[in-house]
Amino acid sequence: MAAPRLDLHPDRLLPLDPQARAIARRLYEQVERLPIVSPHGHTDPRWYADDAPFSDPATLFVVPDHYIFRMLHSQGVDLADLGVPRRDGAPVESDPRRIWRRFADHYHLFRGTPTRAWLDHSFATLFDLDVRLTPATADIYYDRIAERLAQPAYRPRALFERFNIEVIATTESPTDPLDAHKAIRASGWKGRVITAFRPDPVVDPQFENFPHNIARLSELSGIDATNWDGYLAALRERRAYFKGFGATSTDHGHPTARTCDLSRAECERLFALAITGRCSPEEAELFRGQMLTEMARMSLDDGLVMQIHPGSFRNHNPRLFESNGRDMGADIPTRTDYVRALKPLLDRFGDEKSLTVILFTLDETTYSRGRPARRPLSRLAPGSGLVVLRRPARHAPFP
Amino acid sequence: MAAPRLDLHPDRLLPLDPQARAIARRLYEQVERLPIVSPHGHTDPRWYADDAPFSDPATLFVVPDHYIFRMLHSQGVDLADLGVPRRDGAPVESDPRRIWRRFADHYHLFRGTPTRAWLDHSFATLFDLDVRLTPATADIYYDRIAERLAQPAYRPRALFERFNIEVIATTESPTDPLDAHKAIRASGWKGRVITAFRPDPVVDPQFENFPHNIARLSELSGIDATNWDGYLAALRERRAYFKGFGATSTDHGHPTARTCDLSRAECERLFALAITGRCSPEEAELFRGQMLTEMARMSLDDGLVMQIHPGSFRNHNPRLFESNGRDMGADIPTRTDYVRALKPLLDRFGDEKSLTVILFTLDETTYSRGRPARRPLSRLAPGSGLVVLRRPARHAPFP
Amino acid sequence: MAAPRLDLHPDRLLPLDPQARAIARRLYEQVERLPIVSPHGHTDPRWYADDAPFSDPATLFVVPDHYIFRMLHSQGVDLADLGVPRRDGAPVESDPRRIWRRFADHYHLFRGTPTRAWLDHSFATLFDLDVRLTPATADIYYDRIAERLAQPAYRPRALFERFNIEVIATTESPTDPLDAHKAIRASGWKGRVITAFRPDPVVDPQFENFPHNIARLSELSGIDATNWDGYLAALRERRAYFKGFGATSTDHGHPTARTCDLSRAECERLFALAITGRCSPEEAELFRGQMLTEMARMSLDDGLVMQIHPGSFRNHNPRLFESNGRDMGADIPTRTDYVRALKPLLDRFGDEKSLTVILFTLDETTYSRGRPARRPLSRLAPGSGLVVLRRPARHAPFP
Repeated sequence: MAAPRLDLHPDRLLPLDPQARAIARRLYEQVERLPIVSPHGHTDPRWYADDAPFSDPATLFVVPDHYIFRMLHSQGVDLADLGVPRRDGAPVESDPRRIWRRFADHYHLFRGTPTRAWLDHSFATLFDLDVRLTPATADIYYDRIAERLAQPAYRPRALFERFNIEVIATTESPTDPLDAHKAIRASGWKGRVITAFRPDPVVDPQFENFPHNIARLSELSGIDATNWDGYLAALRERRAYFKGFGATSTDHGHPTARTCDLSRAECERLFALAITGRCSPEEAELFRGQMLTEMARMSLDDGLVMQIHPGSFRNHNPRLFESNGRDMGADIPTRTDYVRALKPLLDRFGDEKSLTVILFTLDETTYSRGRPARRPLSRLAPGSGLVVLRRPARHAPFP
Repeated sequence: MAAPRLDLHPDRLLPLDPQARAIARRLYEQVERLPIVSPHGHTDPRWYADDAPFSDPATLFVVPDHYIFRMLHSQGVDLADLGVPRRDGAPVESDPRRIWRRFADHYHLFRGTPTRAWLDHSFATLFDLDVRLTPATADIYYDRIAERLAQPAYRPRALFERFNIEVIATTESPTDPLDAHKAIRASGWKGRVITAFRPDPVVDPQFENFPHNIARLSELSGIDATNWDGYLAALRERRAYFKGFGATSTDHGHPTARTCDLSRAECERLFALAITGRCSPEEAELFRGQMLTEMARMSLDDGLVMQIHPGSFRNHNPRLFESNGRDMGADIPTRTDYVRALKPLLDRFGDEKSLTVILFTLDETTYSRGRPARRPLSRLAPGSGLVVLRRPARHAPFP
Repeated sequence: MAAPRLDLHPDRLLPLDPQARAIARRLYEQVERLPIVSPHGHTDPRWYADDAPFSDPATLFVVPDHYIFRMLHSQGVDLADLGVPRRDGAPVESDPRRIWRRFADHYHLFRGTPTRAWLDHSFATLFDLDVRLTPATADIYYDRIAERLAQPAYRPRALFERFNIEVIATTESPTDPLDAHKAIRASGWKGRVITAFRPDPVVDPQFENFPHNIARLSELSGIDATNWDGYLAALRERRAYFKGFGATSTDHGHPTARTCDLSRAECERLFALAITGRCSPEEAELFRGQMLTEMARMSLDDGLVMQIHPGSFRNHNPRLFESNGRDMGADIPTRTDYVRALKPLLDRFGDEKSLTVILFTLDETTYSRGRPARRPLSRLAPGSGLVVLRRPARHAPFP
């Protein structure tokens, strides 16, 4: 039997209704050829620094993508059999072709998911595959993709150019010296890859190795970050350093949107607890909330746009966290409040015209409050897929 | 370049699908020419009492409409530049044409909003405008609207009749002597404008000047309202007074739908705290909840329908509240519980056949619970845009 | 005037859009003739055991169906006038024709409801009625249905066969000796009716007569269930007994999805409180949560699939509960959390490949979290109308 054809419907992401589809097509045609400006593109800056070929299909598509391996894991496939590394260094599957075949064996699970839509698009448009991925076509896929990845046109910089990317922001911790970004700049390559300041490891007392992260912050900034004032000064220094590598935004992945506006004494008390690892969960939440407000205060000075994406319950599966660490696909969206949570930050800085905060939401019910009436906008302007506070600032994520 | 045309699509509020649209049209044609019965029409009774011409386009459309000025404010326009009065009496923009131009400069912000749909409808059908409002057409609009407002056909009573309004309810506080309603009646005009009893200022201990409002309640009712029994008696007296001006309903804008059924001693204790301004936030919430139950009890006697519209976090922006007061567009819909919140009231009076409660919701997720099953209706009957409890009562809002 | 026709549109449950409808039709045609496998069919096993004719239209359709009588009750009809029995044995309407007429008088209330869609389908396809149910056709309906119910083809077993039911699960309490199931088996009839283990009466300390139910559990299991170990052993014995009558699943109707993983000492303490009726509401919730985890543990041993349907606030109307008992239509869907609630159970057993948990939801907002991103699946896989945890187990509800 011939393998089923892989056909990408040209309107596959547009509405079904013919009139709505015609409008959607017109809109899409206006943006289709525009360059990509990606303020939140989770790619590894090392790709662009080294411009090394991607090694093989499994290591590119399966091993690092928690949206893929979590689906298989939820259906009983062991992560080790997919080559996902363990924290203890115990051996995992190392044959990329076998990993790829296991993926192909379970590809039917992705029917109707955005993951499948994205993968099929990549297979068809980048690798000229015209049959569907099935157990029977697994090797055809593997060989074709492997062959292409070895070609110069499939190296990271070539793809960056082929994709017509005007600028992409990677995301780094303040404890990152940005060596990859330095290397990109030193290379003379013209692709615009900038960093974004993601301080979770040094503002969330519940982050792994928080005290260690603070020590590293002191080291990199050259400022003693073990007291409240020094800590804030060190963060300011790192923000300036990140701006030197193009950063136009900060990025905050908090469990909730809670913000606080505490007294100086309370801030000092919480920080002292945090750096000794003795915060209660509620104190950690207060500290994170205070740090959003501190980040807003610093944004008023240096113009970085704040991106907040709250509402993911991270590392829900403790056994998986122990064996494989974070970002293993065990993050689950939760109900998220913005109205009360953001009030302390907004009460302090919400009327500043130069502050821009972009709120992402994983909880679509946010959009179902207020529709019957004309939508209240003065403090919180829900959009499509994100919520934007205040007017576009002087300092948009990309000029 | 010619200004873009203002065309109202005849099916602009109907579904896109041709079959659904045909059904919607048939339904609409059945109601299109019916008179308007408006149980919740936020118009000023002084309009109908005085029948004075509206002064100018800005004072009619921009200055008093928080759905409009909040949008501009959220994009960085100062309220003072839109002529919105300040509490301290500091000067604000007083030239209506300049206010109108600023509005026109930002009219693109309303694309896709119900506010725009309503405004364009008004501009086209009332003022025969056939170009869109843009900075270039701002003066054309201003002059046309100003010219019309000066004509007798654009006075409030003439518009009331032109709009085929059978009856409209305005909303007044128990501390309002209803002078405008008296004047309407004395004028001999036949338009039916009735009041609705909105007791928030005297049942919400967190309302501005609550103790003062209670003093005013005593004064107007002729009953000492500074003790629990007198307070209830004064409210009963004011309800009767409002019924004398046509009231068929009460109207309650509480932060939540919470109701209580407390002991007499607890009611007295909370009231004593409230009138001295010493309620904690939780005590204020309890008191408001108790007062919903008290209002239900009074409704059983006098037949007024209860309208409850919970779920708006009011005056979210304290700086704005301080500078300009309430209703400045800083109200934000919040997640709202009805099932637990209404239980105390329903446990007490929910089986009374003569009680009618209309629940409005700003939180559409209310409708997304229970769809898979046949919808539970015995206590809570979600409808379209409102929730009706119990059967249509003897005393519908309008007979 | 002729009575309005009862026409069932062949696509009445399919989407309106022609293209979506064509796809839906193709899908439906593939399943239309498949036998029914009903893992959650709330029918009375006595029907199949006795195979007695249904007595009359009202007793079949109105008196036992809370989706029907709650609608009428919400509009002011007394339950006694619909023949719904009272706990105190006080007389209620006993003339089925009068009950049926009252139902017909209010049938318009069901317009647009799933209840109406299901009833009209039954009337048309089973009773060949081709006019709508109205006050004018009430007697036509009554006579036709009554006549048919007296025929052998309308007895429960004949309908079971006509409906092409492969297997149906009824739901029984552990305190049920399953006499009806015994009788079905003894009868030699080949219809496959199995039981499902629904332990709410013996795991929910707030269930009516909980201490009495535990005594009954001891009696039926032959194990002293008045201490924690004996209680668990007795539950295990009853699960085995239910498996002997075909059970493949358990069924849990908890107010919330909360689960717990408490220490043995805490379990013993809570159980001791529970059997003496002294649990606080919070302790009862903890106990129920612990029992979900215990049920999961037992499922690992005996392979029963867990069905959890949380989120119904049961018996919301205390007056109705007092007069008529439970399942009187006073259950209301509430907002339901799964992410935090299920964590203790999942932390303990969520990685066991042989555990299958089916989560039902009454709160559709569950599906609105996570759409923008590729859906997180590793712990919680939302589907259409139900949520399935982990892969299909060895022991599916029906082999």
